[in-house]
Amino acid sequence: MKLNSTNISIIRRLLVGRKSRPLLSILGRLEPADLASLFGQLDSRESRYLVDALLSLDKTSEALILVPEQKLEKLLGQLDSNILKSLLVYSSDEDAAYFLSLLEIGDRHQLLESLEGPKRQRIQLFLDYPEGSAGRVMSTKIFTITPTMTAAQGIEELRNAAQEQSIYYIYCINDERQLVGVASLRALATAPAQTAIEKLMKREVISVHPFTPADEVSRIVSHYDFIAVPVVDETRHLLGIVTVDDVLDIIQEEATADIYARAGLQEDDRIYTPATSSIKHRMPWMILNLFLAALASSVISLFEHTMSQLIILASLKNIVAGIGGNTAIQTLTVVTRGLATGDFNFISHAKVIIKECTVGLALGLMTGVCAGIMTYVWKGSALVSIVIVISLLLNSLLAAASGALIPIALKKWNLDPAVGSGVLVTMITDIFGFFCFLGTATIGLYLIGA
Amino acid sequence: MKLNSTNISIIRRLLVGRKSRPLLSILGRLEPADLASLFGQLDSRESRYLVDALLSLDKTSEALILVPEQKLEKLLGQLDSNILKSLLVYSSDEDAAYFLSLLEIGDRHQLLESLEGPKRQRIQLFLDYPEGSAGRVMSTKIFTITPTMTAAQGIEELRNAAQEQSIYYIYCINDERQLVGVASLRALATAPAQTAIEKLMKREVISVHPFTPADEVSRIVSHYDFIAVPVVDETRHLLGIVTVDDVLDIIQEEATADIYARAGLQEDDRIYTPATSSIKHRMPWMILNLFLAALASSVISLFEHTMSQLIILASLKNIVAGIGGNTAIQTLTVVTRGLATGDFNFISHAKVIIKECTVGLALGLMTGVCAGIMTYVWKGSALVSIVIVISLLLNSLLAAASGALIPIALKKWNLDPAVGSGVLVTMITDIFGFFCFLGTATIGLYLIGA
Repeated sequence: MKLNSTNISIIRRLLVGRKSRPLLSILGRLEPADLASLFGQLDSRESRYLVDALLSLDKTSEALILVPEQKLEKLLGQLDSNILKSLLVYSSDEDAAYFLSLLEIGDRHQLLESLEGPKRQRIQLFLDYPEGSAGRVMSTKIFTITPTMTAAQGIEELRNAAQEQSIYYIYCINDERQLVGVASLRALATAPAQTAIEKLMKREVISVHPFTPADEVSRIVSHYDFIAVPVVDETRHLLGIVTVDDVLDIIQEEATADIYARAGLQEDDRIYTPATSSIKHRMPWMILNLFLAALASSVISLFEHTMSQLIILASLKNIVAGIGGNTAIQTLTVVTRGLATGDFNFISHAKVIIKECTVGLALGLMTGVCAGIMTYVWKGSALVSIVIVISLLLNSLLAAASGALIPIALKKWNLDPAVGSGVLVTMITDIFGFFCFLGTATIGLYLIGA
Repeated sequence: MKLNSTNISIIRRLLVGRKSRPLLSILGRLEPADLASLFGQLDSRESRYLVDALLSLDKTSEALILVPEQKLEKLLGQLDSNILKSLLVYSSDEDAAYFLSLLEIGDRHQLLESLEGPKRQRIQLFLDYPEGSAGRVMSTKIFTITPTMTAAQGIEELRNAAQEQSIYYIYCINDERQLVGVASLRALATAPAQTAIEKLMKREVISVHPFTPADEVSRIVSHYDFIAVPVVDETRHLLGIVTVDDVLDIIQEEATADIYARAGLQEDDRIYTPATSSIKHRMPWMILNLFLAALASSVISLFEHTMSQLIILASLKNIVAGIGGNTAIQTLTVVTRGLATGDFNFISHAKVIIKECTVGLALGLMTGVCAGIMTYVWKGSALVSIVIVISLLLNSLLAAASGALIPIALKKWNLDPAVGSGVLVTMITDIFGFFCFLGTATIGLYLIGA
């Protein structure tokens, strides 16, 4: 069943009656992804009732896991502790750890204490891994067999394994739960019944550590076209697997982070973030920009005398800074994206820098000539036209050079090229643009003896 | 074996001797991804020799497929037609179609004609699908069985299937090659030998059409956490499958497209694009920006009289436009990313617009007060300080409103919000910023009777 405005309003009406049969029957037919978006349409009381109803269907955790983090944080904060406890009990360890990580410290400890020993310890293990690590995204429900089994025994084990698990690789572990090999399900299924698993498995298994950053894991999975990668500790004990669907989410998150970094945004500043935290997050960036704009203004103010002699300069100086800024941002984007996607494996840094400078020079020349003619037609001043051509040419060259060099340099120094580059190159092109334009004009005015 | 500068130089030396045994032995031990990056280090003659050597190892197409498109285009253009022909013969139909699509029209037809009938027809079929469609990315090597088989017969079929194929879902087709169901490899492996496949398979199969856009396919695969999705025509004939590793590539491409759109860049403008085509691609954007900058300048020039009365205004006006531009870009980024990732399923448009305006107003007030104090300390003019506070407040509010409204409106009209929004909001905040700052100053100067 698909979610639409009709059944949303039916569900809202039914929610008032709590866990009625018609409500449970509708909810039972919805996909988890649709149940998750349903939460976005409900007020806080309705959301509580919905969690309660989903608990009796055992669908709560699948649905909640798909609710965006900040929405979920708010929702969980509104639930009674006994509902929260049922949620944790019915969730897998990794989901329970994720839900707990979104609660306030106090509530988290209290709830964790209320759980029975082994589950509590397993959840605590997850919470101990750093955020954004393989340990936090891995799934611990892994189907394993031992290398001493036969293929037929392996198939028998598989028959008895939980049905909801998706199984693509068969991990082989020894008595100490150390990962010793991996076999494809296909090899297992097609082997003669008495073949030893040992003969079927591949012994060199590419694996990651629970502390490996998630983006590194996603690179490994996509490089080797894996469906899953095992997570092992220092002594090769198998702890979990990270599957390709987790990797898809990680790549989406990375793209957001990359786009956000360009605008000086924090990753958790989303459309549903409360205004107060958005203001708090964006303020430092604004102050930095204010400071840089003031710096540019102080450069401009050096030329107040020149501008008061030829006031048209005050109107035109933005053209040079603006075109330079655009050239810089384009170069920067091409180069940082090239760094992010590994395209630099196919070309040298020097070639890219020379090429971008050539492009910058050509664009500066062409826009300069256009702007020069335009200005001459508009204001009839040959001096101003020449000034605009020269300064556009110089500033575009500098813009291209800094747009190419700065991200490459930041990457060399192990800094994220997406984060700082934008501000740096915009500042350089603004200040140099103004300086160049007003400076050339000052020299020009001096030469013609004005 | 890993690729490093030592073995690259060994390979380069060995390449001169063409297909020698030591060369083939080194190349045979390299991963396809590493062979692809090797092409980035070689000149055109060496690349030709490398293709030749890889052909005798039957590794050419796996390696070439991983070379970035534009690099590959250049490389293929340098190969002799008999080498190109061997490449096509030894490649899968979809890879051959991809290689052909990168050749010049004339060469493409000539080569296609030189292939034998059935292969030529199959390749032509691929070339008929539009670029960026499921038909172009799908793989046609699919393992299929029929519903009338028993599980044991299915396993027997699997045993005889080509070893290099990765098989995760078992597609069931009838005598007309129509897709009638799908079974998991696990169900097949664990079922009693005599079970009919009909009993094991799921009959409702989510599928896509060869003309379905690739980004739509990637959303379906990631929404349902699939490993692959089948491609069928109108009459449900099974044509191919799109696998999750293709989807990972599509998502990366999409992220690049999104980031590029913000800077007014064309998708095929990469670090290794020749300078001439980069210039051609970027020129229209520069001309558009030049036009917009000229528009802003003409607004400023309306206030030349005001600026000549109080020349400090000419130095300070960039602060208002700059801060407004940053507020607009931040709002825009948060809103367009929310639209792209489906976050608007969880919150209404109205709430987001109100929130962003609140944030804009607050940031405008705070930066305004800072800038006002800074200006007063620097220049000691109360008038200029008041003007800067008022105009920063108004411009930040407008910046936030347009940054939120424009992408939402573009999306409503089915336009890509990432493409046009940036230019529009920057133009609005620039022009309004200058107008607001210089207008308030003009009124102020009039009021104090200057």
